[in-house]
Amino acid sequence: NNAASGKGIQSLTRAQTSHPLDPLSAAEIKVAVATVRAAGATPEVRDGMRFVEVVLSEPEKNVVALADAYFFPPFQPSLLPRSKGGAVIPSKLPPRRARLGGHHRGKVVVSRTIRDVQPPMDAVEYAECEAVVKDYPPFQDAMKKRGIDDMDLVMVDAWLVKVTYVCLSIIAEAEAPYLRLAKLFIFLHEFEDRKLVPLPPADPLRNYTPGHTRGGVDRSDVKPLQIIQPDGPSFRINGQFVEWQKWNFRIGFTPREGLVLHSVAYVDGSRGRRPIAHRLSFVEMVVPYGDPNEPHYRKNAFDAGEDGLGKNAHSLKRGCDCLGYIKYFDAHFTNFTGGVETIENCVCLHEEDHGILWKHQDWRTGLAEVRRSRRLTVSFICTVANYEYGFYWHFYQDGKIEAEVKLTGILSLGALQPGEVRKYGTTIAPGLYAPVHQHFFVARMDMAVDCKPGEAYNQVVEVNVKVEESGENNVHNNAFYTEETLLKTESQAMRDCNQLSARHWIIRNTRTVNRTGQLTGYKLVPGSNCLPLAGSEAKFLRRAEFLKHNLWVTPYALDENFPGGEFPNQNPRVGEGLASWVKQNRSLEETDIVLWYIFGITHVPRLEDWPVMPVEHIGFMLQYLKAAMMLQCRHVPFRPSTCERDYV
Amino acid sequence: NNAASGKGIQSLTRAQTSHPLDPLSAAEIKVAVATVRAAGATPEVRDGMRFVEVVLSEPEKNVVALADAYFFPPFQPSLLPRSKGGAVIPSKLPPRRARLGGHHRGKVVVSRTIRDVQPPMDAVEYAECEAVVKDYPPFQDAMKKRGIDDMDLVMVDAWLVKVTYVCLSIIAEAEAPYLRLAKLFIFLHEFEDRKLVPLPPADPLRNYTPGHTRGGVDRSDVKPLQIIQPDGPSFRINGQFVEWQKWNFRIGFTPREGLVLHSVAYVDGSRGRRPIAHRLSFVEMVVPYGDPNEPHYRKNAFDAGEDGLGKNAHSLKRGCDCLGYIKYFDAHFTNFTGGVETIENCVCLHEEDHGILWKHQDWRTGLAEVRRSRRLTVSFICTVANYEYGFYWHFYQDGKIEAEVKLTGILSLGALQPGEVRKYGTTIAPGLYAPVHQHFFVARMDMAVDCKPGEAYNQVVEVNVKVEESGENNVHNNAFYTEETLLKTESQAMRDCNQLSARHWIIRNTRTVNRTGQLTGYKLVPGSNCLPLAGSEAKFLRRAEFLKHNLWVTPYALDENFPGGEFPNQNPRVGEGLASWVKQNRSLEETDIVLWYIFGITHVPRLEDWPVMPVEHIGFMLQYLKAAMMLQCRHVPFRPSTCERDYV
Ligand SMILES: [Co+2]
Ligand SMILES: [Co+2]
Repeated sequence: NNAASGKGIQSLTRAQTSHPLDPLSAAEIKVAVATVRAAGATPEVRDGMRFVEVVLSEPEKNVVALADAYFFPPFQPSLLPRSKGGAVIPSKLPPRRARLGGHHRGKVVVSRTIRDVQPPMDAVEYAECEAVVKDYPPFQDAMKKRGIDDMDLVMVDAWLVKVTYVCLSIIAEAEAPYLRLAKLFIFLHEFEDRKLVPLPPADPLRNYTPGHTRGGVDRSDVKPLQIIQPDGPSFRINGQFVEWQKWNFRIGFTPREGLVLHSVAYVDGSRGRRPIAHRLSFVEMVVPYGDPNEPHYRKNAFDAGEDGLGKNAHSLKRGCDCLGYIKYFDAHFTNFTGGVETIENCVCLHEEDHGILWKHQDWRTGLAEVRRSRRLTVSFICTVANYEYGFYWHFYQDGKIEAEVKLTGILSLGALQPGEVRKYGTTIAPGLYAPVHQHFFVARMDMAVDCKPGEAYNQVVEVNVKVEESGENNVHNNAFYTEETLLKTESQAMRDCNQLSARHWIIRNTRTVNRTGQLTGYKLVPGSNCLPLAGSEAKFLRRAEFLKHNLWVTPYALDENFPGGEFPNQNPRVGEGLASWVKQNRSLEETDIVLWYIFGITHVPRLEDWPVMPVEHIGFMLQYLKAAMMLQCRHVPFRPSTCERDYV
Repeated sequence: NNAASGKGIQSLTRAQTSHPLDPLSAAEIKVAVATVRAAGATPEVRDGMRFVEVVLSEPEKNVVALADAYFFPPFQPSLLPRSKGGAVIPSKLPPRRARLGGHHRGKVVVSRTIRDVQPPMDAVEYAECEAVVKDYPPFQDAMKKRGIDDMDLVMVDAWLVKVTYVCLSIIAEAEAPYLRLAKLFIFLHEFEDRKLVPLPPADPLRNYTPGHTRGGVDRSDVKPLQIIQPDGPSFRINGQFVEWQKWNFRIGFTPREGLVLHSVAYVDGSRGRRPIAHRLSFVEMVVPYGDPNEPHYRKNAFDAGEDGLGKNAHSLKRGCDCLGYIKYFDAHFTNFTGGVETIENCVCLHEEDHGILWKHQDWRTGLAEVRRSRRLTVSFICTVANYEYGFYWHFYQDGKIEAEVKLTGILSLGALQPGEVRKYGTTIAPGLYAPVHQHFFVARMDMAVDCKPGEAYNQVVEVNVKVEESGENNVHNNAFYTEETLLKTESQAMRDCNQLSARHWIIRNTRTVNRTGQLTGYKLVPGSNCLPLAGSEAKFLRRAEFLKHNLWVTPYALDENFPGGEFPNQNPRVGEGLASWVKQNRSLEETDIVLWYIFGITHVPRLEDWPVMPVEHIGFMLQYLKAAMMLQCRHVPFRPSTCERDYV
């Protein structure tokens, strides 16, 4: 019997064990699948059901607030959403619901049938596609023409294009997939062996496994480096709930997005828990290629909407993927036939030392004050065919959040005719060619800066630094100043980066002020970025119209989750997703703000990216603004003794 | 008696103990000072001598090559510079020379007198300036008007402007310099107490020392994190020579630049030692402010040329400034009166784990290969009055070099009238104002990509990614491609960053090819950057004309070391330094290339930057290109056991 606060709230029996935002457990997925299967009219229907995604139907924000305030520790009735008639507290939360998305080739698995769309491709379908192609006699003949009799040496990768599939055939010894290939074009219903491009020669340098690189050539001079936390980590974990250094948030996971961060907040002394975001995740990524020739112009993978960043996540290994004192989270999915599969150690959470946090040495006295920066890192890594992507969210002690993507893995290659050189890419090895391409990532940030439950008091302001006019007030011509522009509507909020004006965006609370009377906010600081280099009439930009700007802002809406619409896979339709929603031109002056930040890297392949590409980094930052967070990071303790014994 | 190679080279007695590039030792500085002093004509001249900089006169490149090839291990006669008459090997290297730069207020301390220039300001001069001002009765009266009777509470900071000094008077309790201030203007020969701006109120939040932030508010939940290398570090040090993971280079240090890296090379298997750069350092930084009012428009500090990044370096502390297994280097300077002062532990060298180096997981087999990235970091930190700058060079296992600057310390502030708000900055605390400003850094990179001693076979190529025209060859409008432009002359090589075209620059060897026949190179990859926001007629841009472009390229010349000329301090002359040298428009088609990369950050102060600013990062990268370095980082060993015992 808890003592509630003095607001007349009855203390109720609270029996909730799953927070409404916890990802579905294996058991819940089983129940969901069984329920749907049981609804099949005939045994044939029931057995033929295919399950692409079973995912938690996330509850509305007021249910989340209720759970945070009342059903999950710490009990904080002050966080209860306020309705007109005062706080109404049910005895338990509404039941959790699983959402079974879409259909598969017209077979209904949920009460709603959506025509003319495709859910993401499943690994089984890729395997079936590969098997069909390899069994097809004309394909086998084509391989024989290239000197390959043993079809076990052949691998066929499917790519999703239009309503059919196009496949690139790839041939390799087992240890080096993607590194030798033949150029053939196979659509699901047609096969064409165009020009005979011979197989590139087997290159002794193409393998990267220890078995191939060892034998005297492995470096022997990398001495071990251990990260030891003798008193354990500084974070506390309760189920999916994480607390660390005034930060708290919940870990979520979906098949499409992978890692999701819910209810991100910062505990700020006497101001208490200050919400920052409802939900942060990467909702899409697109990789368009710059070669106009077959088959490269068809390559513009939507790695989230066509394949799923979460479904393709890795099981991570201590000492390899992550170093230090690690807390792992598992992820559960349904497989194609409705069984439950678990990726163990799928999300990694750990602390890192991150150099100095701040320093000042007084030149008059010589006295130095310095504090080291610790960051909490939450991440997962996925493979989408040839490429690897690591998605990292870093939390810092000064109120900063950094989003970072690490790109590695294997380039998507083409074979060249002997002596052929292409304008649109790099000859990466004898007979092998890597076309130039771009990687775009879409971060969806459902913000809640200083918004208590039920409040929708955010807006977005663009800041540009401007050169002052010459004249009486600027006789020395040195002056410049910041200009703030409120993004009032969705059409005003389609914006691009501009380094020369130090452009950034503030997500501002319209009603909360700091001690100097300024409105509090969070600042989105772009990192390096670009825009699509394809012509604006390029076909893939119909599906990927959202790439045309670096920033979009929308008011929160329940169904607006994926910028290419819910089913971007081979979607021939125009007018789905972000670029369509903003045509409503809704007001953004004071609302529940969703930011879509789109950042890209233009990848001109280097020889050094082959056979495996060293990690490239790209990202952006969110920083507290006008909230006087430094007052917090002043308090990071001085620890001169951390490493005294390490000494040359 | 060493066995020399078969080229008829006599084995000579080699007694060199100092490499020609080693910074001057304390003993060498003493000898230099004594020599100069003895040359004074009278006792008054000898006693009145003031020493601002005593620095190694770096030998010509052929002497360095000779030392590397023959006098210092490993003995590599193949590196001997080739002259027309064959290798000529002296029995010892020429003697080391110290260069005593400049003069002080017209007093000659070296045989050459340079008129109308000022060397960098010395700490003694700052102190004298402060004392003079504090002893001046009208200044004391002005302080009394503001309620300050005790002049021990007053601190006066001098700024270097024109040929006189302007001082800002700063008042503060001992532990919080820079955080309360009065606005007075003092030129060396005039004093003016303009408007009475009252002292801002004493703000309880302004202090950041443990004494002020402790007492229940210090964070107690940061658990220790130790970095342990039980088998020692992977680097090897021999004097100033460093070897690590195929990298090798020499550590240098000067009063003006601080850390200098000499003779940077990468050992690439059978290709042997491949030079990359002769010399890398930060040669200048400039901080212009955007407020047109007194005194801010005068603030455009040249922190290297006016003060010296090296002279103002810190003595670093293990566990605070650097973590892990540290090798420190000391730095020696002369003080104003000719004594030798040593900054112990001035340069920090250590290894860091840097996350994953590369990864690929085969989706067919589930087999994952992953390697962790280790980097070697060399750094120093300096204070220039209120600000701190940390300069870091990171070396990676994939042939990448990263230059990083960390900005921290205390903002340069102004006081406001009660109720006053300024367009040109941020009200940071009651009565305190931080004007918007920019920080520009100049990296000078004397390159030697794949150049053996005596070779000058480099050129610079700009790369832009371009949208392909629509038409027959681009029917799908997806095409883009890279365009390379050789920067043939100095005037063609004044370039700015452009993210939209993925602009970068290649320092290319004109005669060395990789295995696919392409010319080898190194790629300069810009990070975030900007240009000056002051009007092009701003006065400070006369001295700082080099800020007008992000990249400049010059052919190497002995005296072209500092972009604002050798004496930028209060220099009223136009036409010194980089912007003047390039007017010669020398050819860059095949030469000994010096790159000047200038990168800036526009700093719109945040409340959270006060009282001490959390670190901001800015930098750029150098990456191997067309040299197939990945073949090297394949060989980084797999070490799954590094951290097995750390487990939640
Ligand atoms: Co790529
Ligand atoms: Co600044």
